[in-house]
Amino acid sequence: MPGRIQWDASYADRVPGMQASEIRELLRVLDQPEIISFAGGIPDPALFPTDAIGEACATILGAPPLARQALQYSVSEGYLPLRQWIVGHMERLGVRCSIDNVVITSGSQQGLDFLGKLFLSAGDTALVTAPTYLGALQAFNAYQPRYDTIGFERAGLTAIACREPTGGRIALAYVVPDFANPTGETMSEAARRRLLDLVAALRVPLIEDAAYEALRFEGTRVPSCLALDLARGGDIDSSCVVYCGTFSKTIAPGLRVGWICASRELVHKVVLAKQAADLHCATLNQMVMHRVASSAYDDQVATLVATYSRRRDAMLAALSRHMPKGVSWTKPEGGMFVWATLPADIDGAALLAAALRESRVAFVPGAAFFVNGEGANKIRLNYSLPDETSIEEGIGRLGRLVARGL
Amino acid sequence: MPGRIQWDASYADRVPGMQASEIRELLRVLDQPEIISFAGGIPDPALFPTDAIGEACATILGAPPLARQALQYSVSEGYLPLRQWIVGHMERLGVRCSIDNVVITSGSQQGLDFLGKLFLSAGDTALVTAPTYLGALQAFNAYQPRYDTIGFERAGLTAIACREPTGGRIALAYVVPDFANPTGETMSEAARRRLLDLVAALRVPLIEDAAYEALRFEGTRVPSCLALDLARGGDIDSSCVVYCGTFSKTIAPGLRVGWICASRELVHKVVLAKQAADLHCATLNQMVMHRVASSAYDDQVATLVATYSRRRDAMLAALSRHMPKGVSWTKPEGGMFVWATLPADIDGAALLAAALRESRVAFVPGAAFFVNGEGANKIRLNYSLPDETSIEEGIGRLGRLVARGL
Repeated sequence: MPGRIQWDASYADRVPGMQASEIRELLRVLDQPEIISFAGGIPDPALFPTDAIGEACATILGAPPLARQALQYSVSEGYLPLRQWIVGHMERLGVRCSIDNVVITSGSQQGLDFLGKLFLSAGDTALVTAPTYLGALQAFNAYQPRYDTIGFERAGLTAIACREPTGGRIALAYVVPDFANPTGETMSEAARRRLLDLVAALRVPLIEDAAYEALRFEGTRVPSCLALDLARGGDIDSSCVVYCGTFSKTIAPGLRVGWICASRELVHKVVLAKQAADLHCATLNQMVMHRVASSAYDDQVATLVATYSRRRDAMLAALSRHMPKGVSWTKPEGGMFVWATLPADIDGAALLAAALRESRVAFVPGAAFFVNGEGANKIRLNYSLPDETSIEEGIGRLGRLVARGL
Repeated sequence: MPGRIQWDASYADRVPGMQASEIRELLRVLDQPEIISFAGGIPDPALFPTDAIGEACATILGAPPLARQALQYSVSEGYLPLRQWIVGHMERLGVRCSIDNVVITSGSQQGLDFLGKLFLSAGDTALVTAPTYLGALQAFNAYQPRYDTIGFERAGLTAIACREPTGGRIALAYVVPDFANPTGETMSEAARRRLLDLVAALRVPLIEDAAYEALRFEGTRVPSCLALDLARGGDIDSSCVVYCGTFSKTIAPGLRVGWICASRELVHKVVLAKQAADLHCATLNQMVMHRVASSAYDDQVATLVATYSRRRDAMLAALSRHMPKGVSWTKPEGGMFVWATLPADIDGAALLAAALRESRVAFVPGAAFFVNGEGANKIRLNYSLPDETSIEEGIGRLGRLVARGL
């Protein structure tokens, strides 16, 4: 047929590397209410500050000058009062900065896309931990990188060793240092310092994904890589650390508001990327987030920490009770995930298929979080969405399934 | 200093091509209330359906199940009822499609970014009109294309002639057929048919940016390229036309909601791009847009058409009254822009500098809309934001300035 387009022949050479996320595909299954889900990285919607958000919307849309601003085009940098709030927030985290160091993004996911766009030429190497956040790999994949791994606690060794063999320019390092997705583990201060040494030696940017930083249940807070770098001397404009923050885990993900805090030189480039990609984040959403964060951020975090730590406890207790010998798991001090290691002969993807079919339990198989082919016997278990009863019941079902497979 | 990062040496090879938009930079100036602005492509915020949007927010956030959905993560395809509304909207425009042919984007700008990402490898050729929408060039530039031009009324000739000399694969064609940005002109049905023949012969996708389609003041509606292609036989899944729609010009741009309607094969790829880029559009915004579009779309468009057509009349009358001989301009049947051609020795950018300084009038100089170095003596004048009194006053000031320059 003349002119009938062959889509596969029409795509850019980056497209074959862009693959669907297993996590996002799983969201479809989660609509089925009888499934107990430990998949996703989903906050409990019962804990959203719905009243505060509703009041903020009503106030803004009820005042004509505010309403007109909220519904109109706005600047790509983001809503100034929200950027000012973030400056204060970053200062509380040990990071001195100004509004020129802050740009608003549609969640931290969009920050990762922009940073991939700005740093990765095809064939460049991105340094990531193994495992790492799947969504970061998805964002970066569109820019056709190779990957090399850095150890979560042994940062420095692997990357330097692999610098020559992989070839190509090392373009960036990416890490989730607090209550990491998918492991729930937190990088020690010593490891963060070694990582800073590594990126300084390589002269590459370090992308610090701080999505879960606020959700610490216990233990001692470790300063962010950005704060540690600034504490060594020098200011944010000379730091190589690019901090990605988000309100998705603290206020509400459905509003899609996050930020990048970094050198003003880089922030200027991110603003250009934002302008070209979608002009700006929804103005109303930024104005609402500013009001809610200003009035309710600390209370909201306290509520989440209280609830999620009980659920973490319930999950750890259920795992101890129901998992057969040969299964181990992390003990996170915060965040949303426990990472379990099954015996080497159990495949996480096969277990998921069986768990959905026979046990009506969902989780995320581990292999997708690795760029080096490992992780087949790992699984990620989320405890922020299910309540304690569901956790006990779901882990019980899963434990029996694993025991049967042994 | 050891480890101090050299940002310029860190960027990907696509970054030098990513430049700031003159239009967006101009938005900064527009904060100064004494300036009469014909710049931007900004709707009049006094016409936003603020009450309907406020009521939709209150209804959604006041009902706990809806509120939880609105503030939670959601699927990358977009909110199902909104996609269903768009299916009905497209059918009214002569396009039979299903929800599998519709994906929600953060305004049509994000659609352009995704289509650049999906179709443009570095060195590929994008076919655009001269002039064309500056934001499309910005979105595409990140993917390092070359450009070749197609005539707005002479589509076919230039591109085929230039196919060999420019080298590289021709990857896409892009056009704003209705009340184009920046010229306000509408492509005839005959030209659309020739353009469809061209892209069929080249076997490339045709990106149809329909941002202004709803804003027709008078004259006969010309079917969209997508509708014309479907009327020739075949269904949307075999069409090469990719339709980018938006609520930014009809409901409100600050909510950042648009869509792509195309072959389901391509829509699937756009969903992958969306997932990697920012997961999904703000759920609340999509739910609000669904309610407002369902109840108020036609009334809202009627209000805009009535107001903007009066302003278009005022601008055409003021141009006739105040512009010296040697200046000509388009007579748009809809949309937001008049495109004026000054005598060849008057430079639009120099005129803008003088106009801001001496006359407190803003507009957009034409050169930025061209990929071929033309347009220095063109200017884009927006009439959707200023009222009739401001239009008369501002065009009067500008006319005196132009006359002085002659």
